[in-house]
Parts: sequence; structure tokens; C-alpha cells
Amino acid sequence: MEKKYPRVLFRKRLNHLSKDVEKIGNATLEAYKDSVKTFFNYDDEPAEKVLTASKKIDEMNYHLEQDAMRVIASEQPVARDLRFIETCIKVGSHLKRTGYLASNIVEVARQIKDEDIPAKPMNDIKQMSGIVENMIQMSLDAFLKQDMDIARELHHEDDKVDDLFDKALKDISESMFKEKDTISYLVYILFVARFLERIADRAETIGDRTIFMITCEKP
Amino acid sequence: MEKKYPRVLFRKRLNHLSKDVEKIGNATLEAYKDSVKTFFNYDDEPAEKVLTASKKIDEMNYHLEQDAMRVIASEQPVARDLRFIETCIKVGSHLKRTGYLASNIVEVARQIKDEDIPAKPMNDIKQMSGIVENMIQMSLDAFLKQDMDIARELHHEDDKVDDLFDKALKDISESMFKEKDTISYLVYILFVARFLERIADRAETIGDRTIFMITCEKP
Repeated sequence: MEKKYPRVLFRKRLNHLSKDVEKIGNATLEAYKDSVKTFFNYDDEPAEKVLTASKKIDEMNYHLEQDAMRVIASEQPVARDLRFIETCIKVGSHLKRTGYLASNIVEVARQIKDEDIPAKPMNDIKQMSGIVENMIQMSLDAFLKQDMDIARELHHEDDKVDDLFDKALKDISESMFKEKDTISYLVYILFVARFLERIADRAETIGDRTIFMITCEKP
Repeated sequence: MEKKYPRVLFRKRLNHLSKDVEKIGNATLEAYKDSVKTFFNYDDEPAEKVLTASKKIDEMNYHLEQDAMRVIASEQPVARDLRFIETCIKVGSHLKRTGYLASNIVEVARQIKDEDIPAKPMNDIKQMSGIVENMIQMSLDAFLKQDMDIARELHHEDDKVDDLFDKALKDISESMFKEKDTISYLVYILFVARFLERIADRAETIGDRTIFMITCEKP
């Protein structure tokens, strides 16, 4: 016996979850971009905006979780539908962490805003941040369009970020070595490199979760 | 109409989830302790043990997630029971991350095993790692015994870790400044301080989730 209308309602609820992930994703990407802008060119207003946004993203994610659990409890989905809902929860959680990492970047930006950072580490961070921005966008596309090719591509991008992180670590250590007075603030730049690496890792994991959702195989 | 046996079965399933969290928690605590031991006194065997354990914890957590989702889908729990299951999933996820942070500590330990680390930063790390070990145990107790006092206590412990992290950052920068040749490996000690801080953060969050599970209020 096919109960038509309840299924239509169910699809609507799944679609709603997907839209919510999209909203959280866009807010996260925005917060990330602002955090990077703030890092390279500090300004109080966008800095505050990022800190507020990361809390808002946390809240949106909380509601997404609650909605997702309610759909599971009331609709008793199985197989791919269940995996889709689980993935919404997971993606939301990774985006939330990305939002907090963006606010970590802003906190560092505030600490070092008056320092004159050596060019080499700064260039490493610039390169990393560009790839990472692209990765956040790709991870959202992979999940929302359920596109395995984009999801797989994220592994290559993450490798690039890892290599740049190693380069940044080397360049930062060298700058510290050359000019001791830079140590006190270059330790913070080291953290930013690490935050970027962790955001890239989250984006890659969103891709992996998407592949798992589609194929049921861990990448 | 009270359906007695299905309820008994339901309680059993919840109890089973709780036991699984306990197992993951114990494995995580063990991996953490081994990682710290490895850090202070490098040895290949315990190092390998931690790397293997963190993958095993990930796997255990994956099964916990799947079981939890199945319970939600088939039993349609509401209110506190639903929150309990959600919390199992969340706690598992925090433990999984803690396991990976333990393997990060081991990776650093491997990098710096032949270096002679200055005493001051080492003492900071030692103090931090003791408090953090205690916090992991407390977070497990808080969740498993549903004890809000322990959960609240975690905030004070986390404050201590944050203060020690700031101290470590200062001591590490000073050591770098005094002896430039230490820079190349002290950057790694900085990361360990950060890993410990992040583990403490996970433990605190497990406490917060426990409070939320009981009171339905975000701490």
C-alpha cells in the first residue's frame, strides 16, 4: 500500500534539511572569507562580524540537529534516506567547527594587527587561504549536488594544503631564526597555518561523508 | 496500553549504547595516557599502539553512530531518551577526535625524540597533561553517571588548562629567543600544548552535553 502524501511530506522534510545545510554552509563560507580578509587587513567591524557569525552558525546547527533527529524519529527512514539525514548532521557539525576556526583566525588577527609580518610566511598563508576557500565551496557543492567527482577532488586539494603547511612551518621557523624579535608574534602565524589546515581537513571530511552517503563505502 | 516487553527491550538498547560509549571512553583514555608517556619517553611500541588505537576508536564510534541511529529510527524515542541517544553520538564523536589528537601527540613525539627540550616548557606540558588526563576521566564519569557536579567542575579544570597553555606559549617563545637552535623543534612542542588544550576542550564539551541532556538547557 503506497501512502502517497506522507512520502511527499517526507521528501519535503529531507529537502528542508538540505536547504538548512546550504544556509549554514553559506554563512560559514562568508565567515571564513571575512576572517581571512581581517587577517590580511585588520578592521574591527568585519572582525566582530565573524565572531557573531560563528555563534549564529552554532545555533543554526543546533536547530538542524534537532530537526534531523525529529525526522528520524517520526519517519523511520532506512538505507540511503537515513544516511542522507546522518550526513546532514555531520556536515552541519563540520561547518560549525569551521565557523569557530574562522573566529580563531580573527582572534589571532587581533593579536598581531600592529606587527610587520615577514613576506615569506605571509605568502604561504595567502596561498593556503585561497585553496581552503575553494575547498569549503567544493565541499558544499559535493554534498548539495551529491557529486562524487568534486568530493574526490578534495583529497588533492587537501594534499596541497598539507604541503603548504609544511612550507609555512619551515618559513616561519626560518624567520624566527633570522630575526628573534619576530618570535613573539610568529608563533601566532603558526597557529593560523594550523587553523587553515584544520578547515581544509573539515572540507575533505565533508567530501568523504558525501561519498559514504552515496556508496555506503568509507573512502 | 502499556507494552511492557518492548519497553524493557528499549531500555536494554539504551543501556547497550551507554556501555559502548564507556568502552570507547576507556580506549580513548588509554590511548591518551600512552601518547603522553610516549611524549615524555619515546618508545616505538606504545607509539604504534596509540596510532592503531585511534583508528580502532574511530571504527567503534562508527558502529555506535549506526546503532544509535537505528534505535532512533525503530523506537521513536522522545524527550530525555532522544537526548540521551543524541548525547551518546556526540560523546562518541568527541572521544574519536580525542583519539586522533592522541595520535597527533605521538607523531610529534616521534619528530622530537632525539632533542633535548628545555625544562620550563616541558614542565608546562607535564602539568597540562596531568590535568587533561583527569578531565577525560571526569568527562566519562559525568556522562556515564549523569553527574552534573562533575560536568560543571570541568569548566574550572579547563580554565586551568587555558592558563597553562598561555604560560607554555610564553615559556616556549622565551626558550626560542634565548637559544635559536631550539626553534626547529620547539614549534612542535607548541603544537602539543595546543593538542592538549583541544583535548581539554572536548572533555569540557562532553560535560556540557551531559548538562544539556539532563536539563535541556545549554550551559
